[in-house]
Amino acid sequence: MSTPHYLALSGGVGGAKMAYGLAQVLPADALVVAVNVGDDFEHLGLTICPDLDTVLYTLSGRVHPEQGWGRADESWGVRDELRRLGVDTWFLLGDRDIALHLLRRELLQQGRTLSQVSLELARRLGIGATILPVSDQAVRTMVDTDRGRLAFQDYFVRLRCEPVLRSLDFEGAPSATLAPAVRSALASPDLAGVILCPSNPYLSVAPMLAVAELRERLRALSAPVIAVSPIVAGEAIKGPTAKIMRELGVQPTAAVVAELYADFVDAVIVDHADAQLAASDPRFDVAATVMKSAEQKAALARHCLALIDALRSGRLPQP
Amino acid sequence: MSTPHYLALSGGVGGAKMAYGLAQVLPADALVVAVNVGDDFEHLGLTICPDLDTVLYTLSGRVHPEQGWGRADESWGVRDELRRLGVDTWFLLGDRDIALHLLRRELLQQGRTLSQVSLELARRLGIGATILPVSDQAVRTMVDTDRGRLAFQDYFVRLRCEPVLRSLDFEGAPSATLAPAVRSALASPDLAGVILCPSNPYLSVAPMLAVAELRERLRALSAPVIAVSPIVAGEAIKGPTAKIMRELGVQPTAAVVAELYADFVDAVIVDHADAQLAASDPRFDVAATVMKSAEQKAALARHCLALIDALRSGRLPQP
Repeated sequence: MSTPHYLALSGGVGGAKMAYGLAQVLPADALVVAVNVGDDFEHLGLTICPDLDTVLYTLSGRVHPEQGWGRADESWGVRDELRRLGVDTWFLLGDRDIALHLLRRELLQQGRTLSQVSLELARRLGIGATILPVSDQAVRTMVDTDRGRLAFQDYFVRLRCEPVLRSLDFEGAPSATLAPAVRSALASPDLAGVILCPSNPYLSVAPMLAVAELRERLRALSAPVIAVSPIVAGEAIKGPTAKIMRELGVQPTAAVVAELYADFVDAVIVDHADAQLAASDPRFDVAATVMKSAEQKAALARHCLALIDALRSGRLPQP
Repeated sequence: MSTPHYLALSGGVGGAKMAYGLAQVLPADALVVAVNVGDDFEHLGLTICPDLDTVLYTLSGRVHPEQGWGRADESWGVRDELRRLGVDTWFLLGDRDIALHLLRRELLQQGRTLSQVSLELARRLGIGATILPVSDQAVRTMVDTDRGRLAFQDYFVRLRCEPVLRSLDFEGAPSATLAPAVRSALASPDLAGVILCPSNPYLSVAPMLAVAELRERLRALSAPVIAVSPIVAGEAIKGPTAKIMRELGVQPTAAVVAELYADFVDAVIVDHADAQLAASDPRFDVAATVMKSAEQKAALARHCLALIDALRSGRLPQP
């Protein structure tokens, strides 16, 4: 990277919206998105990377606009036939989605890393930004619940987050390292800043931070690191974040989210609904964080870049 | 097997039609179909078994009625998206076909043999007859042509049999053994007879016979072995059999086909168009071998069973 660039750390739907906003306001070569792989799993012989797929589909304009994941204009010929063959199709894969997965499988079988495959898929989807898995090694989120220990997709999709969560761990994380291009982006003197997208801190961000190298590099970074809170007025914008926080015995507030990242984050952007946080603590910044339209995504992205710029020039964020 | 049973050896389209006829006139537990695996290959991470699939689709009533392979009422969502992703989709896989392949891949990854997987797929498709690969080991047809050495599907599908064929060989065949259930069917005292379906002798039957154990067991068999000629009046009913025979320097006649199997076949059924062969040689039997309707398939199947019955009772076939 020879131009100033930004690194976004993203989970699925909420993170992808933030990344989409950043892609709107930054030149293509100024944005690197490192994506959670803790949700990845093997299903029907395919390597499914739900968060990478959501980022790929969102940034290429192919995402299903209402649900925020999966493909728009999807067809279901394969799923319908699998059902006729007696296969339990609890994980929804449409025909277009399956096409991407067949291509990913083929590229992986050629011996390419998940990073190389993700770059290739992004290229074929016409995405200018650099999309990477946080690690090329397997990191698998496991949840201990009142119904026992479950693989993530079992808990998240098949059981719809119904089991009460007791703890999480990330298999493979202790030995995992950053994907080489993510490490390069972090080590580059041209790194302008890091944006932690508004993703679930436990299910999406924690598996990334479980790669110890990431947390260490973020702590040591001279460029600003900012986070956007996924919690607004005590509730998650989407998904089970608030439910999970309560089950883990913590209050679902933006302040608690900020505490999780306190060792490496310079500022946390909270929604106007949580503006009282910023009144007493200069680490908090306030913006409209609920992203529905493309304009809202771009506006929040511009706000992030302005905050990073302010932090770089030594000015405190504006409460 | 405790009841009298018949073993059919089948390639793709023509063989599947014969097997369909046999399935119409025999009880489900009286028919074992052993299928060529020489055309099998890996594509998009899927294990594709063209002849097994054609037999499965034909016997379950799902085959495309005009082309004789692939699925009726197929949709193409995955293929269309693969094309948009820049993937060369020279091998046609429809959505329903892909569903079967994803299930096969999953079952194989569970550690099951191709035999076990084929039995499971047949069960799920509602087929009563026993459908098996001739071998659970990989046997791969390779062709030497005027455009060099080619994998079978490269030659057959991608290049549409256009290269001039010089010779064939079957990688893996020297170390391959019969699938256990095919061996059992051949070794059983209840085996009433073997029917070599009207499949391409070079591309479909030769890879089966290249498994040395098959040819040895057929030679030693006390039950009758009959073949149905795929050549009618010097031409193949379908496919490149006649072209290939000419390129290999032999006349495309039913007599030449019979010669290929002379060491183990008791009788060869030829079409009425080749009735002159039967006039001078009692090893030939005459029937209507062009199978278009279900009735024609059943009639030829009944003719096969009657011929086997005659051979078992020591009567010569009727010229």
